[in-house]
This record gives sequence, structure tokens and C-alpha cells, in this order.
Amino acid sequence: MTKAGLFITFEGIDGSGKSTQARLLADDLRSSGHDVILTREPGGSPGAEEIRALVLEGATDRWSPETEILLFTAARRDHLERVINPALARGQIVICDRFADSTRMYQGLSRGDLRAMVDQLHRLMIAKEPDLTLLIDMEPGLGLDRALSRKGSEERFEEFGEDLQKRMRAGFLDLAAEFPERFRVIDGAREIEAVARDVRDIVLDKLVQS
Amino acid sequence: MTKAGLFITFEGIDGSGKSTQARLLADDLRSSGHDVILTREPGGSPGAEEIRALVLEGATDRWSPETEILLFTAARRDHLERVINPALARGQIVICDRFADSTRMYQGLSRGDLRAMVDQLHRLMIAKEPDLTLLIDMEPGLGLDRALSRKGSEERFEEFGEDLQKRMRAGFLDLAAEFPERFRVIDGAREIEAVARDVRDIVLDKLVQS
Repeated sequence: MTKAGLFITFEGIDGSGKSTQARLLADDLRSSGHDVILTREPGGSPGAEEIRALVLEGATDRWSPETEILLFTAARRDHLERVINPALARGQIVICDRFADSTRMYQGLSRGDLRAMVDQLHRLMIAKEPDLTLLIDMEPGLGLDRALSRKGSEERFEEFGEDLQKRMRAGFLDLAAEFPERFRVIDGAREIEAVARDVRDIVLDKLVQS
Repeated sequence: MTKAGLFITFEGIDGSGKSTQARLLADDLRSSGHDVILTREPGGSPGAEEIRALVLEGATDRWSPETEILLFTAARRDHLERVINPALARGQIVICDRFADSTRMYQGLSRGDLRAMVDQLHRLMIAKEPDLTLLIDMEPGLGLDRALSRKGSEERFEEFGEDLQKRMRAGFLDLAAEFPERFRVIDGAREIEAVARDVRDIVLDKLVQS
């Protein structure tokens, strides 16, 4: 039923519910007969998952921000070549939990000059933007509670206080303002089903247009 | 006795004897009282060694050339930040077995357009050149015999025939012509001791100048 490939990404602070929403959207589209691939970053291909493990395991200062950007870009390149681009070429809908916007936001937040480096690396080695980016937006306090109530082996990016979460939320909203043609901001501080309805409406609209 | 840090790299085809020469030079300079660090690429720091293992293990087509360049650049960035730059800042002599020239040559050889990508990545993320690069040059047949007579776990880059080795030799000589201010070409098809004498003379000259 899909006419052409569509590349949809989900972004948001930890605990925003974006991963749940990505999964619900994939289920919903599949039940309507669409051919869907659900993937995530960092990781998403066997090689990229190995690079992800290298980045996320160990001490926080194990890699400098610059080396980390290079490793994330290597993982993204592998994921793009092995999973995303082939799926889009087959006409599938690709739903990805985090993509380049997460790198732009997280690295740009830690040091202002890194955003320019991230952008240059992206242009040189990735040069791909989603057709649609759904930002699941909410008050940091709520997201943090959700994140801390989970247990996971990748706590590095969740070992942050509420102040940093506020700056992350603002960082994502800035990106939404910077790329208005592909970003849609969705209020995530509601029941999962209500958020999922908004997500589905936006995606169905996009499918009709494309 | 060293007045300031000096960054010396060795390059050459597999089996050219460059690793032996790097070690002999390190020993010689140390016995003259110089403070020397002997290192190698890919690898050279704990993080870079892990990235090296990720790149060199597994099937040849495990990573695309572009992803491989990103991983090598990540390893080089880590090596530079953790080992090379701090040693130079302390006034040590850094002797490195392979550096960015190897990436330029190997990747540029496999596809012409990759050389431009390697250069852009280097400018953006590394931006460091050796003070002196010693190219141990020899007929590929001789180097290949030496390389094949060794056993190692990293045979990927040595699984090449003589024709490819010839192109590699030519690639290194092209780089020497491109960067004449820092390259010195040494005839490696002689006794180890004769080659080592030339290496030492060139380095002592450089130390007097610097």
C-alpha cells in the first residue's frame, strides 16, 4: 500500500515516551497493511550496535566529545547504509527512535562549538534528513520520573538532573524551530493513547501528501 | 636533552621493515638520552585499540569504506588526545608506526573520491601533521615476501597481491611528492643496519634544526 519510502524519526528527552510511541505507530501502520521497519539510534544495525556498546559502556570521560561524535557518526553511517536506505529504496516506512537531531542536541548542549562540528560531519558523511520528525515534548520533571523508574544498562545519558533535562527540552524545541518543515511538536504529557492518536493523524496526513 | 616535542611517523607497504625501523630509532634515541614514546596506528591508546579491533576483525565487507574512515578517524582522534599531543606538550619525541598518510593512501587507492573525504575529515577532526615522515620504500615483491613470512591476526591489510602492493608503493611515493617538506624517502631494500643509519642521520639533522 505504501507508494514510496517514508523516513520518520522520534525525538524527545528521556522518559518522554517516544520509544513507546514509535512502537505503537509501527504496530498501527502494520495493521493497516503498511510495510514498516522500526529501528533506533544509536545502533540499529549489527555494526552500529557494536559501536553503540563501545560508546555507552565504561566511564563517562572514556571518550572526548569529539571522538564520541565520530563514533556516533560511524554508527549512523552504518545504520543508514545497511538498514535505512535499503528499506526506503524498497518503499518501506522507516520509523527510527532518535536520529541526527539527538546528536545535534546532546553534543551542542555540552559545548557550543560542537554543534558546528556535528553539522559539518553530518553534511560530509550522512547528508540525510527524515521526511518527518515527531518531537514528543513534555515537562522535564515528568520525563525524569519515568526514566528513573526504568532500569537499564545504558544509564549514562540518563544520569542527569532536572536542570539539564530542562536544557535538553529547550534544545529539542530549538531544533523544531530550526527545521519547521519536518518537525511536529506533540504534547507528550497526556495519556499514551491520546498522544498516539496525534502521532497517527500527523503520519497519515504525511502519507496522503507523499 | 630534547628541546621540544618532535612528531615522527613511519610509512611504507607491509613488509617494508618500517616497524622494525621505528623500534630501532626509538632504542637509539633513548640510548642517547632522549625521551621517546613509540606508538602505532591504527590504535596506540586503549580506546583506539578497541576501535582498531572493531575495524580489523570480521569479514572484509563488514564496514563500508566510509564507515571505516570514520572509525579510523575516531581512533586517531583518541590516540592524538590521549597519547600524541600530551607527549609532545611534555617535550617528548613521538615515533608513530603509520599515521594519517596510511589512511590517505589505502582509502584513496580503493576509490578515488574517498581521498577528498579523508582530507575533509582530517582537516575537521585531526588537523595535525607530523614534523617528519620517513617512508621506507622498496620493491613490492620483497615486502610481500616479508609480510607473508610473518603470522599475525591482522591479515586483512596484507591479503593483497603484488599488483596492489605496487599501487600502494606508488601511492606512498605520490604522498611523498605531495608533502615534500616533511617526507623523506629511504631505500628499504638494504640491510636493516644500513637503513637504520639513514633513518638516524635524518632524525638527528631534524633534531639539530628544531
